[in-house]
Amino acid sequence: MDKTKVGIINVTGYVGVELARLLHQHPQVELISVTGRSAAGQKLGSVFPHLAGIDLTIEAELGEVDLAFSAMPHKESAGEVTPLVDRGTRVVDISADFRLKNAAEYVSTYGFTHPAPQRLGQAVYGLPELHGAEIAPAQLVANPGCYPTGAILALAPVVKAGLIEPEIVVDSKSGLSGAGRTLSLRSHYSETNEDTAAYALEGHRHLPEITQELGLLHSGQALSVTFVPHLTPMTRGILTTCYATLSAGKKGQEELRQLYLDFYRGKPFVRIAEEPPHTKHTWGSNLCLIYPTIAPATGKLIVISCIDNLVKGAAGQAVQNMNLMLGLPEVSGLEAVAVYP
Amino acid sequence: MDKTKVGIINVTGYVGVELARLLHQHPQVELISVTGRSAAGQKLGSVFPHLAGIDLTIEAELGEVDLAFSAMPHKESAGEVTPLVDRGTRVVDISADFRLKNAAEYVSTYGFTHPAPQRLGQAVYGLPELHGAEIAPAQLVANPGCYPTGAILALAPVVKAGLIEPEIVVDSKSGLSGAGRTLSLRSHYSETNEDTAAYALEGHRHLPEITQELGLLHSGQALSVTFVPHLTPMTRGILTTCYATLSAGKKGQEELRQLYLDFYRGKPFVRIAEEPPHTKHTWGSNLCLIYPTIAPATGKLIVISCIDNLVKGAAGQAVQNMNLMLGLPEVSGLEAVAVYP
Amino acid sequence: MDKTKVGIINVTGYVGVELARLLHQHPQVELISVTGRSAAGQKLGSVFPHLAGIDLTIEAELGEVDLAFSAMPHKESAGEVTPLVDRGTRVVDISADFRLKNAAEYVSTYGFTHPAPQRLGQAVYGLPELHGAEIAPAQLVANPGCYPTGAILALAPVVKAGLIEPEIVVDSKSGLSGAGRTLSLRSHYSETNEDTAAYALEGHRHLPEITQELGLLHSGQALSVTFVPHLTPMTRGILTTCYATLSAGKKGQEELRQLYLDFYRGKPFVRIAEEPPHTKHTWGSNLCLIYPTIAPATGKLIVISCIDNLVKGAAGQAVQNMNLMLGLPEVSGLEAVAVYP
Amino acid sequence: MDKTKVGIINVTGYVGVELARLLHQHPQVELISVTGRSAAGQKLGSVFPHLAGIDLTIEAELGEVDLAFSAMPHKESAGEVTPLVDRGTRVVDISADFRLKNAAEYVSTYGFTHPAPQRLGQAVYGLPELHGAEIAPAQLVANPGCYPTGAILALAPVVKAGLIEPEIVVDSKSGLSGAGRTLSLRSHYSETNEDTAAYALEGHRHLPEITQELGLLHSGQALSVTFVPHLTPMTRGILTTCYATLSAGKKGQEELRQLYLDFYRGKPFVRIAEEPPHTKHTWGSNLCLIYPTIAPATGKLIVISCIDNLVKGAAGQAVQNMNLMLGLPEVSGLEAVAVYP
Repeated sequence: MDKTKVGIINVTGYVGVELARLLHQHPQVELISVTGRSAAGQKLGSVFPHLAGIDLTIEAELGEVDLAFSAMPHKESAGEVTPLVDRGTRVVDISADFRLKNAAEYVSTYGFTHPAPQRLGQAVYGLPELHGAEIAPAQLVANPGCYPTGAILALAPVVKAGLIEPEIVVDSKSGLSGAGRTLSLRSHYSETNEDTAAYALEGHRHLPEITQELGLLHSGQALSVTFVPHLTPMTRGILTTCYATLSAGKKGQEELRQLYLDFYRGKPFVRIAEEPPHTKHTWGSNLCLIYPTIAPATGKLIVISCIDNLVKGAAGQAVQNMNLMLGLPEVSGLEAVAVYP
Repeated sequence: MDKTKVGIINVTGYVGVELARLLHQHPQVELISVTGRSAAGQKLGSVFPHLAGIDLTIEAELGEVDLAFSAMPHKESAGEVTPLVDRGTRVVDISADFRLKNAAEYVSTYGFTHPAPQRLGQAVYGLPELHGAEIAPAQLVANPGCYPTGAILALAPVVKAGLIEPEIVVDSKSGLSGAGRTLSLRSHYSETNEDTAAYALEGHRHLPEITQELGLLHSGQALSVTFVPHLTPMTRGILTTCYATLSAGKKGQEELRQLYLDFYRGKPFVRIAEEPPHTKHTWGSNLCLIYPTIAPATGKLIVISCIDNLVKGAAGQAVQNMNLMLGLPEVSGLEAVAVYP
Repeated sequence: MDKTKVGIINVTGYVGVELARLLHQHPQVELISVTGRSAAGQKLGSVFPHLAGIDLTIEAELGEVDLAFSAMPHKESAGEVTPLVDRGTRVVDISADFRLKNAAEYVSTYGFTHPAPQRLGQAVYGLPELHGAEIAPAQLVANPGCYPTGAILALAPVVKAGLIEPEIVVDSKSGLSGAGRTLSLRSHYSETNEDTAAYALEGHRHLPEITQELGLLHSGQALSVTFVPHLTPMTRGILTTCYATLSAGKKGQEELRQLYLDFYRGKPFVRIAEEPPHTKHTWGSNLCLIYPTIAPATGKLIVISCIDNLVKGAAGQAVQNMNLMLGLPEVSGLEAVAVYP
Repeated sequence: MDKTKVGIINVTGYVGVELARLLHQHPQVELISVTGRSAAGQKLGSVFPHLAGIDLTIEAELGEVDLAFSAMPHKESAGEVTPLVDRGTRVVDISADFRLKNAAEYVSTYGFTHPAPQRLGQAVYGLPELHGAEIAPAQLVANPGCYPTGAILALAPVVKAGLIEPEIVVDSKSGLSGAGRTLSLRSHYSETNEDTAAYALEGHRHLPEITQELGLLHSGQALSVTFVPHLTPMTRGILTTCYATLSAGKKGQEELRQLYLDFYRGKPFVRIAEEPPHTKHTWGSNLCLIYPTIAPATGKLIVISCIDNLVKGAAGQAVQNMNLMLGLPEVSGLEAVAVYP
């Protein structure tokens, strides 16, 4: 059988190279084209020595592919993706440009007027554990943000079951690759090594995604999500600790665990952990580990999730979406065990 | 003037060596005796090369001192400290053995029956920003835990002002020196590097301290504190993110900031930060940085604090207590600027 | 076709779990048995959550396998391996117990009298790039040490070509997983983070291996290898910088590079790098990157190699040896691209 | 007594802020002026929160001072320093602009024609352990590079004593703060964390300094120094491992150690270590630890040194030079013990 031809727009960031790594190793697709403005004309393996085994030259324009991934920055991605969708190419857009259903939120959250608002309704939010059936036939899939992936998967079961009060706290700890390969003082080694700090206290761009998706699962009073992201000195990984108050008639620890096991039954990339999970246990893999528990002193619900932000939080999830879109096994090309220690 | 003679019981852990560093550099005291069981008989500088400039031999028994620091583990410290106190030596106990007022909590929290419960009422909880007046004349000061120091200082102003609802979430991120020098898989480099995880979800020993001290400041319905500590891959530093709901008639951002400025006016080791603080900005110093803010999306109160867990969270605070006990300037020997980057 | 049945003796160290990861993902073998004394009776995935996808219980005794890997510590491995070899099982021994040809060196280097010296001549030193033809039919393969793998591969081409004077300096920088999972102050996070130091200046156990293998390639005056290992704060990776004086009639830079390209032509896991290589470019992969150059100021030969110490330096190389022994493609199960960044 | 007024040109890099930290804590000088182009007009503590205790505004032009430090980049520093020297201000230049005696080397090494070659003979190379007597009266002191400080101090005793053959290998491992605060991919967290690599194999700019200074101590055949710097994932610290062949009539281990003890007797910032030293033991301090030894297998001389690159390798050494120039105790303001762990 011929392999499906795929390509990556803007391969030169961390999500782009991670996609290249995964697609190169995927048994049923062939990566035939990668683009990147500044590096156009160079061999992929010259710019990224770990990809020296991939014989591709970085191009200015994407070649003819069956399915394209856009790893462009937000605001710029829509402009690349829309013409492709118009001419029938299927696309997984890893930027934020098609994640939000409400065009007005692009103005308030990202500071730009969305250039193709009519596409927002058509795009499917690419969290396979929640939207698998819609992703399969979709032409345009909006790959979720890294923080939303961890937060939504942690909270979806209790929100859907109506088990918690609407006030939720989401406290995330992220490694630095999430800030990308673009140079900035925030990612400068000497500034970030031996350091932990919160940021975006004025409101992080991923909050509307979290609220939108949990809101779809929720009935009753609107959810109130307080989200604080933190940077910790590691390259990969996001650990998210969620806090909520259990509604009256609350569940016990075992019942809670069973709820999560039931919710994610048959989902290959979610594992309900038996112990508080470590980001390191997901390093390089597409797994999301989730640990729900109840604080003995206060009865508060605590749900902890962890993912590799570049895999389940970005490139791996994009491949998972592609698998569903192409009718391939969901786990195809994503079966690698985490590299530990 | 003769310098006050001081000594350290159990110098061989990280808190002990940090105390030795600070006391050696202190202009008004003289470190004349250090003990340590396993290393007794060795030169301090042979076991800890960075202390080669201190000409002391580790002894089995503490020499005659005016004031003693105990850096013994909890449960063992009380046995060392009680005879000293009995014969009139002033003591700063860095263990947990005299922090809790209620003897029953030692059974439930630390799993042992307190050997000298009558001393619990006499000991002063050594958080100078709250208990300075009681510390000055005290004979026995119980130095706070590292997590409680960051959490209590972050929350004291709003708790005392009655500004928040009783449900509080305290999410702390700690470096690994807090776990001590004792070997364990939790502190093994390859296990912890590139890793973040929560622990002690069944209840951390520092929670009763936090509840006790905030409770003293609080009136009305009992506080309900959910505390989750996390380990992040750095040697020093604790960042604590606190979440609470502001009571009706809530304050604005500027009013909130002013409340903190007023509360900590004249306290040399607390600084109300203008930006979200970084643990790195306290590295090696006795500072606690505090940043109170209000989440724009939800109106939730967020207060972030950070400290160096070995300095303000342990040895530095012990020296600060000693300064107050000896009538020395509070900042004496503690003026070092954080080492950055 | 039935898969070859393989097993791991002592799966509970870092080399053991890395082998389990690689063998689980190997398309032509089946991992059916793993042993470990302290953890016997536990599920592999309970002790190592990243291996939760492998449905095996850690046993006290190895099951019936076609080929066994021993990840026992040196001195203990020989006792496990010898009976297996006696009854015809093929073995890759990852310990040092069969690496040295001269039994006397076990006394001087490892401090024990070898229990089965007659096997030393029979065992093949498992560096496939040098001994591939002997490994294929071997019953017992001695997997090389991590430092020797990097050093020997870096120097073999110039030693064999007789291009250098006999005095060689080998300066290696290793991550900490090489020190294993056993607890020690040397691998304690707070001791090793933000630290670089040399060790084993009195003579490292890997030196005789390096000397033995380079000696086999060398003619003329005996080689004199000064080897200094260093620990740097990273989990995986060894960078080795080798220094030697080029003999009269020395080569130019391009000629030197060509010598390396020719020497390693057709060797899938050695790549002659175009730029000074980074350990990070081998993270999780079985590659060895080699960069030979000539110091412009002095004409000194400098050869830099880097590997992932747990893959090409241990478990990956063991799988590569197994592939040769079983007549499988050399790269089978080892094609994963390095995980970067 | 009035304190000496000092200032820092270009305070906004890592060396500049480290100088500010040290000078602020110095008992006999007063830091009254700091400059920085991009940040001019801002409070020092706004740009660098750890310096919030220093009440200075960053200026465009240096105020009137008795002694100035230039932390400008090379090539630009000479232009700032020359007018100051012309009008009689004493200067410690931390850039490379006055380190080399031979003006031609600026063209070959730094790629610019020196603007004030007549000053090169006048400037004193500011390595106090070698040139203390000349530094004291100097008007212009050229503060050594970080790598040369570690390498020269490691080798000076044996070079001066004529104990080694002229071929020397210097293999250095540096933390990342040496690369400065300027953004670059080489200092980007995700690129450098979990990575070790060599660089500048085409010739590092610090080599001529090493050769110049060792050459002054050496008689006979010119030295041939092969120098390879490496970056390791830590913020501070340089470990330098030097290799040389001992001349005929070589010394024993104890004799060698005695030679080092004698050479550095009375030098407060050099300590001859009893064990292989760790960079961590110098963290934040002005110490240089040196460990000379002889490889048992080959008789090769190995000398290891370590320093904190921002203190003894830059700002601390600059303060040490200032102390000598002002007739202050050499250790004044530099007595802080290393912060460990």
